[in-house]
Amino acid sequence: MDNFDRLERMRRAMESERLDVLVLRLPENVLFLSGFWPMIGATLLVFPREGEPLCIIPHCYENEAAHSLWNAQTTYYRYGVLGAEPVAAIRSILSDAAREKNWARVGYEGSFEVVGPSWNTAEAIVPAAPTRRLLAEVFDGAELVDVTALLEFQRQRKTPWEAAKLRTASEISCIGMEAFEQLVDVGVSGVELAAEAERAIMVRGTGYNGALRVRAFAQVAVGHAECGVGYRPNEISTVRELKAGEPALLELGVVVDGYWADRTRVRVAGEPTDEQERVFETVRKAQEAAIAAIRPGVRAAEVDEAARAVIRDAGWGDLFPHITGHGLGFRYHESAPLLAPNSSDILQEGMFTSVEPGIYELGVGGFRLEDDVLVTAGGAEIVGPYPKRLAGIMAEIPRRND
Amino acid sequence: MDNFDRLERMRRAMESERLDVLVLRLPENVLFLSGFWPMIGATLLVFPREGEPLCIIPHCYENEAAHSLWNAQTTYYRYGVLGAEPVAAIRSILSDAAREKNWARVGYEGSFEVVGPSWNTAEAIVPAAPTRRLLAEVFDGAELVDVTALLEFQRQRKTPWEAAKLRTASEISCIGMEAFEQLVDVGVSGVELAAEAERAIMVRGTGYNGALRVRAFAQVAVGHAECGVGYRPNEISTVRELKAGEPALLELGVVVDGYWADRTRVRVAGEPTDEQERVFETVRKAQEAAIAAIRPGVRAAEVDEAARAVIRDAGWGDLFPHITGHGLGFRYHESAPLLAPNSSDILQEGMFTSVEPGIYELGVGGFRLEDDVLVTAGGAEIVGPYPKRLAGIMAEIPRRND
Repeated sequence: MDNFDRLERMRRAMESERLDVLVLRLPENVLFLSGFWPMIGATLLVFPREGEPLCIIPHCYENEAAHSLWNAQTTYYRYGVLGAEPVAAIRSILSDAAREKNWARVGYEGSFEVVGPSWNTAEAIVPAAPTRRLLAEVFDGAELVDVTALLEFQRQRKTPWEAAKLRTASEISCIGMEAFEQLVDVGVSGVELAAEAERAIMVRGTGYNGALRVRAFAQVAVGHAECGVGYRPNEISTVRELKAGEPALLELGVVVDGYWADRTRVRVAGEPTDEQERVFETVRKAQEAAIAAIRPGVRAAEVDEAARAVIRDAGWGDLFPHITGHGLGFRYHESAPLLAPNSSDILQEGMFTSVEPGIYELGVGGFRLEDDVLVTAGGAEIVGPYPKRLAGIMAEIPRRND
Repeated sequence: MDNFDRLERMRRAMESERLDVLVLRLPENVLFLSGFWPMIGATLLVFPREGEPLCIIPHCYENEAAHSLWNAQTTYYRYGVLGAEPVAAIRSILSDAAREKNWARVGYEGSFEVVGPSWNTAEAIVPAAPTRRLLAEVFDGAELVDVTALLEFQRQRKTPWEAAKLRTASEISCIGMEAFEQLVDVGVSGVELAAEAERAIMVRGTGYNGALRVRAFAQVAVGHAECGVGYRPNEISTVRELKAGEPALLELGVVVDGYWADRTRVRVAGEPTDEQERVFETVRKAQEAAIAAIRPGVRAAEVDEAARAVIRDAGWGDLFPHITGHGLGFRYHESAPLLAPNSSDILQEGMFTSVEPGIYELGVGGFRLEDDVLVTAGGAEIVGPYPKRLAGIMAEIPRRND
């Protein structure tokens, strides 16, 4: 269960930054360097440049941690029960770990302002002033170094092990797209569509290819007006019901044991009009063109332009107001690559990006397609491929272990 | 749509702390002082001691903000579209707001390490070093004051307006408990129970009493071993199926337009044994005893003891390892009151707390009941009351607008 590549890359980066140790508590970063996706965010990872990592974990999650941790040492502290003193316990464990180590430069998560949830999406635990004060006390005399940029950079290129996890998450997201498409019909509401996609993913995704913790965040815009602003970062799903000929736009975030997928599909209730088919076909071709442009060494801005040119040539350039894609993996959105007109990112093997062109007009609707793509040595791999059709019966999706 | 009490209380507190203005961006605090629950956490609230508040909002959420904001001024900035520069826009708007105000002490959220999600539970936006640097630049020469403790204190006592919102959230949580209880049966899995409770709440809760944004986080432990560790802060729902005579334990967090409910119910598939009924009845009486002890002026530790004594007298004192309850409202969990043996909190009118005794034993199961209680002038109000039975047909729950 080790992930040798990942740990070696990080140790080399720490060496060139002269970092002796990282102390991490954001669930996405604990997962990144330990393999364990914390249940509630109360886990700390001490990751030294030399020697074994130490994971400090609430005692009640011993089983979950043992199941997934790579080769870290573990210390469990009492949490959530009478008599527990989590802060004192963590301080004492950290002090023991630091003793006689001569750690002079200690990395911490100082600038993460966008954070992913732990398994408990209802409440996040994040590092703020108290964590920083604790580190200053425990590592008295050491220099505290904000390693946010370093972590974000290291997270950009996924290892083969991580790519396999992301493939599983994307395959599970197909369950939700299928449930959505089967339910789209006249009289069905946005909340019904969103809730059913989430339900299907949790019920049928848990256990798929070993997945233990599966959760979806679906948003469905319904009708011309709601879909017409469907480029917004987040929609409200409402009780409005689909009428004949109207589009329904599904935006879908899925997390599987800490690894994310981000998908979008659009369907029309009943028969699409010729114009709807033309718009949809343009989006489909724009997405294809972008994916065809993806390979190591290409500028992310060129990939954006490949999609944008298709939509512009069709006469709808003004109706594609957002970027073509963004990095993801350890979070719903990651900082790079950014497939955007002014992006300075260069694609590299192992990068993972959404590709999601769209065309939106108030009164007409919103049409977007989104898939997640891995940059491979030879070009691009769409992970968890899934059909794209505006209406009609969908092909069976591949399943590994139904 | 104003909430005069709330704003007046906060302004008085700011006066006694000599604070000129607060700059808040955690969704829970923006909601607390503006009425708007941000869609994605990219909203800032400038709350001066004198004069009107200013809410700085992504342009794409103008409708949602207009629907719910009290009397704040609003400025919208371009977000999530090509050419948008959110950080520069926010800096400029903040600078304009600060001009000629002579604000000398500026409050910010420095120590929130537990945070609630925005409507987008898949990704949180939190203030870290970049927000602090921005404030230091914009309010050059002013003193930045960490107002975490002040905000948490002010949030403890709910206004009548807030209590009404919390009542709605708790009533909507009943939909999920009902769906759970109707589905509990031999052969049903934990993920099926959890997903159906969440689906029912989103579908039937949206629109209930004006609710616009409704989301649930359900966890269901199934069988003796899973329920036996059901005191853990978060369970995994698994694909394990209920067998005859086994318990299923539902832990349920529900958020309705930013206001939280936290409930627990337990059911047995088929016929409960006499021992299961005795344990359940003990938990029910412990919960009743705690609620009967709640009134303004009482020590929170006494309320804990009221529940604990019932369980101890029944001989199961060692099997109740957690606190009796915790504050909540603007988050799944809030810092006070804490119904616990060593708590120094004194109950006051308007406080809102969970009451959730439980009895757990590996190999036997876990039995907990949880309701949310408002401290009233005369005692306690269970908000969103819902029947408590281990098995059998449930009474109809009251609905305002089915």
